[in-house]
Amino acid sequence: EGNLSKIFENLNYSKNFNFWINVHGVHDIELIKRLIDHFDLDKMVVQDIVDTTQRPKVEVSSDMVFFSVKSLLPQNGLNIESEQISFILKENILLSFQEKKGDHFEYIRGRLREGKGLVRKSGADYLLYLLLDAITDNYYTSLNGLESRLNELPQKIMDDPKPEQIFKLEHIKQSLFNLRKAINPLKEAIIFTEKGPSAHIHSDVIPFFADLKDQLWQLTDETDLSIHRSEGLTNLFFSYQGHRMNEVMKVLTIVTSLFIPLSFLAGVYGMNFKFMPELDWNYGYPAVLALMALLALGMLLFFKQKKWL
Amino acid sequence: EGNLSKIFENLNYSKNFNFWINVHGVHDIELIKRLIDHFDLDKMVVQDIVDTTQRPKVEVSSDMVFFSVKSLLPQNGLNIESEQISFILKENILLSFQEKKGDHFEYIRGRLREGKGLVRKSGADYLLYLLLDAITDNYYTSLNGLESRLNELPQKIMDDPKPEQIFKLEHIKQSLFNLRKAINPLKEAIIFTEKGPSAHIHSDVIPFFADLKDQLWQLTDETDLSIHRSEGLTNLFFSYQGHRMNEVMKVLTIVTSLFIPLSFLAGVYGMNFKFMPELDWNYGYPAVLALMALLALGMLLFFKQKKWL
Amino acid sequence: EGNLSKIFENLNYSKNFNFWINVHGVHDIELIKRLIDHFDLDKMVVQDIVDTTQRPKVEVSSDMVFFSVKSLLPQNGLNIESEQISFILKENILLSFQEKKGDHFEYIRGRLREGKGLVRKSGADYLLYLLLDAITDNYYTSLNGLESRLNELPQKIMDDPKPEQIFKLEHIKQSLFNLRKAINPLKEAIIFTEKGPSAHIHSDVIPFFADLKDQLWQLTDETDLSIHRSEGLTNLFFSYQGHRMNEVMKVLTIVTSLFIPLSFLAGVYGMNFKFMPELDWNYGYPAVLALMALLALGMLLFFKQKKWL
Amino acid sequence: EGNLSKIFENLNYSKNFNFWINVHGVHDIELIKRLIDHFDLDKMVVQDIVDTTQRPKVEVSSDMVFFSVKSLLPQNGLNIESEQISFILKENILLSFQEKKGDHFEYIRGRLREGKGLVRKSGADYLLYLLLDAITDNYYTSLNGLESRLNELPQKIMDDPKPEQIFKLEHIKQSLFNLRKAINPLKEAIIFTEKGPSAHIHSDVIPFFADLKDQLWQLTDETDLSIHRSEGLTNLFFSYQGHRMNEVMKVLTIVTSLFIPLSFLAGVYGMNFKFMPELDWNYGYPAVLALMALLALGMLLFFKQKKWL
Amino acid sequence: EGNLSKIFENLNYSKNFNFWINVHGVHDIELIKRLIDHFDLDKMVVQDIVDTTQRPKVEVSSDMVFFSVKSLLPQNGLNIESEQISFILKENILLSFQEKKGDHFEYIRGRLREGKGLVRKSGADYLLYLLLDAITDNYYTSLNGLESRLNELPQKIMDDPKPEQIFKLEHIKQSLFNLRKAINPLKEAIIFTEKGPSAHIHSDVIPFFADLKDQLWQLTDETDLSIHRSEGLTNLFFSYQGHRMNEVMKVLTIVTSLFIPLSFLAGVYGMNFKFMPELDWNYGYPAVLALMALLALGMLLFFKQKKWL
Repeated sequence: EGNLSKIFENLNYSKNFNFWINVHGVHDIELIKRLIDHFDLDKMVVQDIVDTTQRPKVEVSSDMVFFSVKSLLPQNGLNIESEQISFILKENILLSFQEKKGDHFEYIRGRLREGKGLVRKSGADYLLYLLLDAITDNYYTSLNGLESRLNELPQKIMDDPKPEQIFKLEHIKQSLFNLRKAINPLKEAIIFTEKGPSAHIHSDVIPFFADLKDQLWQLTDETDLSIHRSEGLTNLFFSYQGHRMNEVMKVLTIVTSLFIPLSFLAGVYGMNFKFMPELDWNYGYPAVLALMALLALGMLLFFKQKKWL
Repeated sequence: EGNLSKIFENLNYSKNFNFWINVHGVHDIELIKRLIDHFDLDKMVVQDIVDTTQRPKVEVSSDMVFFSVKSLLPQNGLNIESEQISFILKENILLSFQEKKGDHFEYIRGRLREGKGLVRKSGADYLLYLLLDAITDNYYTSLNGLESRLNELPQKIMDDPKPEQIFKLEHIKQSLFNLRKAINPLKEAIIFTEKGPSAHIHSDVIPFFADLKDQLWQLTDETDLSIHRSEGLTNLFFSYQGHRMNEVMKVLTIVTSLFIPLSFLAGVYGMNFKFMPELDWNYGYPAVLALMALLALGMLLFFKQKKWL
Repeated sequence: EGNLSKIFENLNYSKNFNFWINVHGVHDIELIKRLIDHFDLDKMVVQDIVDTTQRPKVEVSSDMVFFSVKSLLPQNGLNIESEQISFILKENILLSFQEKKGDHFEYIRGRLREGKGLVRKSGADYLLYLLLDAITDNYYTSLNGLESRLNELPQKIMDDPKPEQIFKLEHIKQSLFNLRKAINPLKEAIIFTEKGPSAHIHSDVIPFFADLKDQLWQLTDETDLSIHRSEGLTNLFFSYQGHRMNEVMKVLTIVTSLFIPLSFLAGVYGMNFKFMPELDWNYGYPAVLALMALLALGMLLFFKQKKWL
Repeated sequence: EGNLSKIFENLNYSKNFNFWINVHGVHDIELIKRLIDHFDLDKMVVQDIVDTTQRPKVEVSSDMVFFSVKSLLPQNGLNIESEQISFILKENILLSFQEKKGDHFEYIRGRLREGKGLVRKSGADYLLYLLLDAITDNYYTSLNGLESRLNELPQKIMDDPKPEQIFKLEHIKQSLFNLRKAINPLKEAIIFTEKGPSAHIHSDVIPFFADLKDQLWQLTDETDLSIHRSEGLTNLFFSYQGHRMNEVMKVLTIVTSLFIPLSFLAGVYGMNFKFMPELDWNYGYPAVLALMALLALGMLLFFKQKKWL
Repeated sequence: EGNLSKIFENLNYSKNFNFWINVHGVHDIELIKRLIDHFDLDKMVVQDIVDTTQRPKVEVSSDMVFFSVKSLLPQNGLNIESEQISFILKENILLSFQEKKGDHFEYIRGRLREGKGLVRKSGADYLLYLLLDAITDNYYTSLNGLESRLNELPQKIMDDPKPEQIFKLEHIKQSLFNLRKAINPLKEAIIFTEKGPSAHIHSDVIPFFADLKDQLWQLTDETDLSIHRSEGLTNLFFSYQGHRMNEVMKVLTIVTSLFIPLSFLAGVYGMNFKFMPELDWNYGYPAVLALMALLALGMLLFFKQKKWL
C-alpha cells in the first residue's frame, strides 16, 4: 500500500501466502503496468483499471477474474461520492485498485493489521468476499442516508410546500437511480464468479458469495420501493401546494365577500342627493347598521354551510 | 413449542410420527443450532433462519426443502406487520421458525390440540400446506384491509379534498407494493416444491399446493388492480381540489363583480362637486337606485348564462 | 337443465349422441358430484367448479379438457356483472357450470330447441365453440358499452368539468382493466385446446377456434386503445378545469381592474377638505366623468391587447 | 376489375401470364367464392376476406400465401380512413381484395395500363411488392399528415392555450397509436414471406421485400418519437395554461394592491366627523395627494422588485 | 477524397496497401457505382448508401461487412445535426460514405496526412475502429452539450418559471431520445463485427471494438439518466409555477384583507345620516383611527400566524 515501488523489492511471490495489494490512485500507470507484469497478468486490463469513467465490467479468463465496480461513499449531505474500484483475483493473489485513498476498507485493513485470525488465514477469495461485503455495506449506508432524507420531506412539505423540496426530491430520486445502476454490475460480477468456471473461488467460500448476492437483490428491492416513495412524495407536494392555494383563496373570498356589500351600502348613504328621505329618519343610522350586521351574518352562514370556516 | 430445551429430552425421533416444531424468537441461536444438529440438517440454513432482514429464499437439496417467506399480520390500522418465517421440510419433520410469538397459526395449532383427525394423521407435507395456506389467508386479510381503506377514500375526497388523503393514499400504495413483494417469494417457494425433485411432497398433497399457487396468482392480480385504483384516486383527489378552487373563485368573482360597479356609482354621487345637477333632481336618488338594480340584474344574467349560478 | 336430479334417471349415456348439460347454481355440490361421477370424470375438478372466486384455469388431461372463464354480462349502466363459467369437454359430452341462471347462452339454447340443423348435428366440440363464441360476443358487448360511456364523456367534460366525470372515468378504466383480465384466460384456454393433445377437438372444428382466438386478440387490442383513450380524457378534464378557472379569473380581473381605479377617483373627490379647488370649478364634475371614461377605455384597450376580451 | 362476372368468361388461365385481379367491395361473397374456386384456393380464406373487422393475419400454406393488412388513406383533416386489404399470392397469380373502390393503387394501375415495362413483365411477387410499397407509402403520408398537425400545435398553444388543443392532441395521439397497430401486421406479413418456405417469392425479389421491412422499422421508430412529442406537448399546454393564469393574477393583484390602500385613504378623509383637524388645513388636500403618490410609488417598487412588472 | 474520378486512374489496387476512401456527397450515384464495381462489391449496397433517410443497418456477407450509422454533429445551440455514414470493410479496403463534407473525421485525417505511425501502418479494421471511435466521441459531445443545457434549466426555472423552459426541456428530451436511437445501430454493428464470422477483423483489433461497445453501453446509461433528469425538471417547473401563483395570491389576499375592512369603516362614517352621534364626539375621529389600527394589527397577526408573512 502507499508507495508501491518500495514494496515491490520485498515482494517474494510464493504460493504459500495470500497477497492483498490495494493500489490507491490508479493514475500512476507505470506502477500498475509493473504490477500486472510482476504477477504475469493480461495487459489488457490495465486500461480498464486506469479509465475510471468506464462502465463496470467483468472478465473471466481461465486463470484470473477481473472486474470493476462503483463503490459509493455516502458523505454528509445528499451527495454520494462514487469511486471505481477494480479487482483482480488470481489464485492466492488479490489486487484491488482505487481511484483515491478512501476509507472503503478501513475496517478490514484494521482487522488485517491486528492479525485477527480468520481473515489472515483464509484465502484471497475470502478476502475478496470481505471487500465486496464492505462495498455492499456502503451501498446500504448510502440507501439509508437517502431514505432518512426522504423521511424528513413529508413533514417539511406539510409545514410549507416550497419548490426547493421538489428540487431535493428529484435530487434524491437521481441518487436512488444511480444507486440502482451501481448495484447491478456488482451483482453481475458475483453471479459470474459464482457460476463461471470458478476455479478461482473455493467451494467453502461460495456460500458467502451467495449470501452477498441475496443482500444485493434485497438492496435492489428496497431501492425500488424508495423510488416509488419518492414518486408518491411528488403527489404529496402538489396536493399541499394546491391546498395552500385553496386556503389563501378562501381567506380572500371570505373577507372580500363580507365587506364589499357592506361598503356598497355605506357608499349609498354617503351619496349627496338632496332628497334622500332615509338620511333624515331618526333611526336611519342604527337601522342601516342593523341591516349591515344581518348581511354579514347571512354571508357567514353561507360560508359555514360551504364548510369554508 | 415455547421452551425448546425441555422438549428436546422427550423427543424420540421416530419415522412413524410426524413432527411439527414451531420455534418462536429466532434469536436464540444456540437452540436453533441444537435443533438443526438433532435432525441432522445442513448447518448453512442457520444463518438464513436467524437473519430475519434477509430476502426470502428457497433452497432445495436432495433430502430437505428450506424456504423463508414474509408473513403479514394486518393490525388495526394501516400498518401491516411483517414477519419472516422459515420452514424446513425433511421427510416427516416440519420445522418452522418465527421471529416472535405471533398468532399466524393459532387456528391450526388449535385444531392440532383438539386432535382434529385430518391434520394429525396427514404427513408433514400436508401440515406445511396448512401453514402456507394460513399465511396466504393473512395476505388476503391484509389486502382486504387495504382495500376497505381505499374504499373509504373516494367519499372522503368528495367531502373535503385534504392533502392528508394523498398521504394516506400513498401509504396504502406503499403497503400494496409491499404486499406484492411478499407474495412472490411464497409463489416461488411453492413452484419449487411442486416442480422440484419433490420427493418431499407426496403426490396426493400436490393438488393442494397447486390450489395454493392459483390463489397466490389471483392475489397478485387483485393487488395490481388495487394499485391501479389507488392511482386513479390520485386523479380524483386533484380533480376535487381543482373543483374546490373553482367554487371558491366563482363566489369571489360573483360577489366582487356585482358590488364593485355599484360601489363606484355610489362613489360618484358621493363626490362633493358644487355643480352636480343630478344631486338636486327630485328623483335623482330613486333613479340611481333603479340604475343600480338594473346593473346587478345584468350581472346576474351574465353569470347565469356562464352557468356559474 | 334446471332440476338435474330428475333428468338423471332419463339419461341414457350413449356414444351416439352429443350431450350438453348446463348446470345453473354451482353451489349444489351434491348434484355436481353425482354428475362428475356419472360421466366418470376426475373428482379434482369439483372444487374448481364450486369455488367461483378462483382465478380461471385450464387443465388438459388425456381424456378431457377442463377450463373455467369469466363471462361478463353487461347490464344497464356501468356495472359489468362477472360470472365464472366452467366447461368440461370429454368425447361427445359437454358440461358447463354457471353460477346463476344468466342469459349467456339464451340464443344458442334457442337454436338447439328449435332443432336448427347445424348445431344439433355437430359434435360437442362445435357446441363448445358456439358457447365460447357467445361469451366472446358478451365481451364485445361489454367493451362497446364501456366505449359508448367513454364517448359521452368528452362532451360532458367540455360542458362542465365536474370531478364526478373523473370518478366515472376511473370507474370505466377499472372496468376496462377487468375486461382485459377476463379475456386472457379464455385466450389461454383456446390456445391449449388448439395446440394441446387435442384429440378432444376434431380437425374440422379447429378453424373455428382459430377464428375465435383472432377475435380475442383484436379485443385485447381494442381494449388497450380504450384504456389509452381514457387516460387521454383525464388530460382533457384537467385542461378544461384549468380553462374554467382561467375564465373565472379573467372576469374577476377585468371587472376589478376597471372599477377600482374609478372608485378611487370618486373617493378623492368625496373627501371633505376645505380647500379643494377642483370642487368649485364649474366643469369639475364633467371633467372628472370624462377622465373616468378615458381611464376605463384605456383599461379595456389593455385587456383587448392581452386578448382577454 | 369492376364487374367480375364478365371478366370471368374471358379468363384463360395460363401459366405464361401473370394475373393481378383487384376486387372492390368484398361483400359480394358469391363472386369471391367463384374466384377462390376458379383458382382452386383454400375455401377457408373466404371468411377472412369478407370479414373486414378482423385483425390482420398471415397464413402460409404450401401452395399459397394469404394475408390481410390495414391500409390507411389519409384524408383532408385528422381522420385517417382505414381499410382492410387482403392478398392471395399463388404462383403467378396475385389476388387483392379491397373493401371499397379507393385509390390505394391508382399509381400502379396507371403504370400497368400504360404498359410500363418493368411492372408488366415481372412476376406476381414483384407486383405484390409494389402494392405493399404503395400501402407503406400511405402509412408515411399518414404519419407526415399527423406530424404536420402536431407541428402546428406548439404555436397555437403559445398563442392561446385552449382545451380544444388538448382534444386535438389526444386525437392525434390516438391516430398515432392506430398507425402503430396497423404497421405491425404488415411487418409480420413481410417477415413471413421473407423467411417462410418462400417458394412464392423469387430470390431476386426478396431484396425488395427486405427493403420494405427496413422502411417499416423506421416508420415504427418515427411513430414512437411522434408519440413522445405529443406527450411533451401536453406538458407544454399545461405550463402555458398555468402561465396564463399567473399573468391574469398578476394584473389583478397589481391593480388591486395599488388602488385599495389609496381608496382607503380617500375614504378616511371622506368621513364626516366634526373634529378632523386635517380637513381645515390649507395644504391638507395636496398633502394627502402627495401621500397617495408616495404610497403608489412604494407599491410599484415592490412589484418591480418581485419582477411582476 | 474530393474528386473521385481523378483519383480512380491512379488507383493501383494492391494487396500490400490499406485504402481508406471517404466519399462526400452520396448523391453522385454514378461514382459510387463505379467504386463498388472497381472493388468488386455487392451492387445491392448502393441503394443503402444513397438513401440517407433509411434506418441504419448491418449486413455481413462472407467477404465484406456493410453497415450504416447516424453520426451526430453537435452544433452551437440545441440542434444536433444528424448525418448517415455508411461503411464497407473488405479485406484491406475501407470505404466510407458521408452525406456532406462534415468534420467528423478531421482529426483522424490529420493524423493520416502527417503520417503518424500507428494509423498508417495498421490495417483497415483498425482504421474502422478509429472512425467509429470518432463517431462515438461525437455522441459524447452531443450528450454533454444536451446535459449542459439541462444543467442551466433549474436555475432559470427558479428565477422565473416561463413556459419557454418547458418548450426547451421537451426539445432536449426529444434530442436525448434521438441520441438513444442513434446509439443502438452502432452498438449492433459492433456486436455483429465482434461476434460475426469476423474474418474481417483481426484478433488484435477486437479488444478495441470491445472497448467501444463498453463505451456505447455507458453512453446509453447516461442518456437514460439524463432523460430521467429532464422528467424531474418538469415537476420542478410546475412546482415553481404553482409557487409563483401562491406568492401572487398571498400578496393580493393580504393587501385586500387589510384594507377592505378599514375602507368599510371609513365608509360608515362617511354616510350622511342626520343622527350619527359618533360624528359629533370630540374624540370620534381619533377613536376610529385607533380602531382601524387595531383591526390592521389583528389582521397582520393572523397572517403572521398563517406564516404568510
